[in-house]
Amino acid sequence: PHHLNSPTVYNSVFYTAQFWDGRSPHLSDQAQGPIQAVPEMAAPANLVKERILSIPAYIAEFKTAYGNDVDITFPKIADTIATFEKTLVTPSPFDNYLNGDENALTTAEKKGLNTFIDKGCSSCHTGIAIGGTMQPFAQAAKYKFAHIGDFKGDEKGFVKTPTLRNITETAPYFHNGAIWTLEEAIKEMGSTQLGIKINDQDAADIKIFLGALKGKKPTITYPQLPEESDSTPRPTFD
Amino acid sequence: PHHLNSPTVYNSVFYTAQFWDGRSPHLSDQAQGPIQAVPEMAAPANLVKERILSIPAYIAEFKTAYGNDVDITFPKIADTIATFEKTLVTPSPFDNYLNGDENALTTAEKKGLNTFIDKGCSSCHTGIAIGGTMQPFAQAAKYKFAHIGDFKGDEKGFVKTPTLRNITETAPYFHNGAIWTLEEAIKEMGSTQLGIKINDQDAADIKIFLGALKGKKPTITYPQLPEESDSTPRPTFD
Repeated sequence: PHHLNSPTVYNSVFYTAQFWDGRSPHLSDQAQGPIQAVPEMAAPANLVKERILSIPAYIAEFKTAYGNDVDITFPKIADTIATFEKTLVTPSPFDNYLNGDENALTTAEKKGLNTFIDKGCSSCHTGIAIGGTMQPFAQAAKYKFAHIGDFKGDEKGFVKTPTLRNITETAPYFHNGAIWTLEEAIKEMGSTQLGIKINDQDAADIKIFLGALKGKKPTITYPQLPEESDSTPRPTFD
Repeated sequence: PHHLNSPTVYNSVFYTAQFWDGRSPHLSDQAQGPIQAVPEMAAPANLVKERILSIPAYIAEFKTAYGNDVDITFPKIADTIATFEKTLVTPSPFDNYLNGDENALTTAEKKGLNTFIDKGCSSCHTGIAIGGTMQPFAQAAKYKFAHIGDFKGDEKGFVKTPTLRNITETAPYFHNGAIWTLEEAIKEMGSTQLGIKINDQDAADIKIFLGALKGKKPTITYPQLPEESDSTPRPTFD
């Protein structure tokens, strides 16, 4: 098995690269992948387009969104998914702190933030996603679970730095999902990326800060999907 | 493959039997099945209980719902799922008609209702679910797709009559999902169950009535699930 740990879609609009190997530049491109990938949805682009075009309610919604002259292509369909994904942002107490509210973080969270910066974590976990760029992986020491799965990064061995937003909710950690506790993940990053030993106290402090990156998620109502028509392409079976 | 077509969960509270072979008497019992079934969630009852008990936010919610003395067992967890499922009911124009609003159905829908009754459809599609009891299957003639899949009903060859509520939205039809249009499904039922030939006009009329069984679905907000703890059991891999 590949042992690939699906990155969260929350805040993924802030990544500079999509997928763990960064092979996709943005969400609209990324969304074309899993739909077509055989181990995932296995739906060829033309089939996806035919399905949407066979359902009058979908055509009406595309016209409402893009105008009557809309050309409903597979890239347009993926782009529509990406438009939804762009709404999946989760403002956190840390953002309030950055916006000037000094009381938005507790004393312990501020201490953890200092440790986070002092230890060098912020050299890779950068930007609005606090992650999301391509970085060399395991440059200081070997990742202790490197033997699990077949993912080795891009051609240079670079791996996308995952966002730290909502990290307390997104175990397991790393591309192969082999580490389950945040303390262990913090220590492993110290070792493999920074070449330092992060002790128990510092890991605990950093973990407290990371909790302040847990954000408010948008309220999403389950959609009432339109019914298909007699011309909707049907699945085939072996 | 089994070629089993998952019945809709909407209005399933009104069934007298759960699963196509009716082996389960109610939703609370039914919900224990897919969680444990190896081809589905493959989660042993004890593991499910351990997971819930390892997450403080879930324990708090159980106490809120059932009182501080709640015994969080696997059956209690399944029962909680069933409680949610019981809310998935979809009142339709037909219900308004039954409640005395003679204008709730169009003239064409009323004509279709008459045909539905005249042809004998209502002899099996009974009760509030307009279906949901165990009935002999293919008693008048062989089901034309009987060769697809391995499901043959219960020990007597009985099959659960599916609800007709929202039937325009729940293609494909029958336990093995081999028929995709409602007209064809109506005609096949005439043949296999009633021993009559339903002509194109009658099938079209019945289909129009069935459209009046499309109901208003409850608004459901995606839940914000609580985060796990360090003691939450982790999955094992091969």
